[in-house]
Amino acid sequence: TNAIFTGVPTTVFEVMSRLAIEHKAVNLGQGFPDVDGPEELRRIAAEATVDGPNQYPPMLGLPELREAVADANRRFYGLDIDPATEVLITSGATEAIADCLFGIVEPGDEVILIEPLYDCYLPMARRAGAEVRPVRVSPPDWRLDREALEAAFSERTKAILLNNPMNPAAKVFSEDELALIAELCVKYDAYAICDEVYEHLVFDGRKHRPLMTFPGMRERSVRIGSAGKTFSFTGWKVGYISGPARLVGPIAKAHQFVTFTTPPNLQKAVAKGLASDDAYYEGFVADMTAKRDHLSEGLSRLGFPVLPCEGTYFVSVDIAGMGLGEDDVAACRTLTVEAGVAAIPLSAFYPCRNPPKTFVRFCFCKRPEVLDAALDRLEAYL
Amino acid sequence: TNAIFTGVPTTVFEVMSRLAIEHKAVNLGQGFPDVDGPEELRRIAAEATVDGPNQYPPMLGLPELREAVADANRRFYGLDIDPATEVLITSGATEAIADCLFGIVEPGDEVILIEPLYDCYLPMARRAGAEVRPVRVSPPDWRLDREALEAAFSERTKAILLNNPMNPAAKVFSEDELALIAELCVKYDAYAICDEVYEHLVFDGRKHRPLMTFPGMRERSVRIGSAGKTFSFTGWKVGYISGPARLVGPIAKAHQFVTFTTPPNLQKAVAKGLASDDAYYEGFVADMTAKRDHLSEGLSRLGFPVLPCEGTYFVSVDIAGMGLGEDDVAACRTLTVEAGVAAIPLSAFYPCRNPPKTFVRFCFCKRPEVLDAALDRLEAYL
Ligand SMILES: CSCCC(=O)C(=O)O
Ligand SMILES: CSCCC(=O)C(=O)O
Repeated sequence: TNAIFTGVPTTVFEVMSRLAIEHKAVNLGQGFPDVDGPEELRRIAAEATVDGPNQYPPMLGLPELREAVADANRRFYGLDIDPATEVLITSGATEAIADCLFGIVEPGDEVILIEPLYDCYLPMARRAGAEVRPVRVSPPDWRLDREALEAAFSERTKAILLNNPMNPAAKVFSEDELALIAELCVKYDAYAICDEVYEHLVFDGRKHRPLMTFPGMRERSVRIGSAGKTFSFTGWKVGYISGPARLVGPIAKAHQFVTFTTPPNLQKAVAKGLASDDAYYEGFVADMTAKRDHLSEGLSRLGFPVLPCEGTYFVSVDIAGMGLGEDDVAACRTLTVEAGVAAIPLSAFYPCRNPPKTFVRFCFCKRPEVLDAALDRLEAYL
Repeated sequence: TNAIFTGVPTTVFEVMSRLAIEHKAVNLGQGFPDVDGPEELRRIAAEATVDGPNQYPPMLGLPELREAVADANRRFYGLDIDPATEVLITSGATEAIADCLFGIVEPGDEVILIEPLYDCYLPMARRAGAEVRPVRVSPPDWRLDREALEAAFSERTKAILLNNPMNPAAKVFSEDELALIAELCVKYDAYAICDEVYEHLVFDGRKHRPLMTFPGMRERSVRIGSAGKTFSFTGWKVGYISGPARLVGPIAKAHQFVTFTTPPNLQKAVAKGLASDDAYYEGFVADMTAKRDHLSEGLSRLGFPVLPCEGTYFVSVDIAGMGLGEDDVAACRTLTVEAGVAAIPLSAFYPCRNPPKTFVRFCFCKRPEVLDAALDRLEAYL
């Protein structure tokens, strides 16, 4: 069997969710909301399931969803995307990333990844044949260093894979950082694969700005969005890729052999979701901001140094000096098994070498009573 | 961008479906039924969508669906499969094939494919790093030649990818052929990836027999099933892999990075579907047999030599001497555009070299009036 995957552990999210179930812990590990998204969208999907047809939709996605993705690009970012040739619907953002890597990378190409990195990036980049060049940002400030990034680029750089807003750092890349990335992509004629699944989860009045909107990037970037994250249906596994036809073309060739297509009933509901009025998107951010503040303040009260959170589902804390030891993996096990609260060790996002070892990530997209229960358990344990 | 995919055309199924829509042709090309599967299953999926949770199910699949897959293995084939470690749910059989190839094949391994081959096999085997060894069976008898197969095996053979029942040949491999494949897999210590999506579409009283039931194959085979094909929901994209833990383990590592998981609402309905009584499975075969006979007899009446059909959704005809030229690709275009009936050229399934050029595949899983309309149009054109 294949060494790349035989050597890879089960994803930390699944491992911690299993442990949480086993120990009846409050699960603040794996990132998913505990309240489903809009009932209207669920009803649309349900009706389409009963009424059918439940047969293959077009390989690129339902035309109405591709239109909706193009419309959202214009509405939120002023981007002009052709729904016929520049949008691809996928079975979740995870598949979208796989399709992008398999469609763009050739064996021997270099791909730049920014640590901390989402767990599929490294094995999938390798499986696509890439030589991976990691660049790191570190807690607590997560600043992207110009020299480090410049050193990672070379004539062999095929692409950079960027997660912005960034899980688990809860970082939104600054305009300067994005401009730097864009400058280097242009200079080295590299592509950017932009995992922007948290585009609608940016807080405190900031707005997400796609790397694709920077000079020279429209023709060399693809951006990935997620209905799971944007409408609180992580189980639906509906993702979307927007980008120039010369990239979406080969990416669609990967997609046609990776899953071929995505359930039409769910696509139909997501098309409706993307066209939601501003009240939906604003309410969503307001709700998530309240949850972020709820958990952050609670963790602060318990004495944890809480890192800033500009976006995503997650806040992280430094456990050094909290009596939980100096090993985040062991601490997360202890927290799950003994305190009854599951969390994710940040070292899991630093597979390349020498990870920070005293940071732990909590997911805050849970009901207030669940966050309170978690805080109570942590308090009792500490 | 990647040369493997940049060079690959859009899948012939999508191309012909687009052409059919454009020319208002009766679409007997891409294989999908025009009547959705059981309303009961659609209702279960719809209810689960409204009631939720619509969040990530376990990465391996819903426990109840894994149980149902294990039960079906026992019920239909006497196979003893552990639902906890030997079953994986995927976003369709296409993803299952990708996962198996990425999980099992290492760059430089040899993989044996039997032409005619389903269109994802060759590019995905190559994308996984395989050197492909094609072996061919040919119309009209589709016999597997012992010497040709033996010649394809070597010490470097990692796996054979077998589609049985076989699309588009409509062939069910004989016991002797399966025994030969098993013998060579054992002799060369090779794995078998068995695409058995048409397992419940075998006609004339025959029963499907998985390669996995042959001596020595339990520990070296994975078999792939499809809810789309078995319950007439090709749009649901729910597939399942059964096999020994030592193979399902690394395959699940691929899956966790390819799509991670599959919508829980659809999984729930498929679990119920697999437990259907014998009347469902028997009625399904009876219905499809009637459709096969309807189309085959109609094509015969028009003068087409119709090849035998032992299983799958498809019958093929020889167009030589029918006044449609000697090029199946051109003939399928003509049939779609001028006769108003879309079909698939068999040469599309022979990518390696020197394809047969006078055979055309029709999909028969359509309502009787649709089959009649297609036959009327063909008659009018001829
Ligand atoms: C695919 S499960 C992981 C969910 C998630 O994005 C996270 O917890 O970081
Ligand atoms: C993935 S679309 C192709 C459907 C099918 O299996 C076929 O037509 O052969």
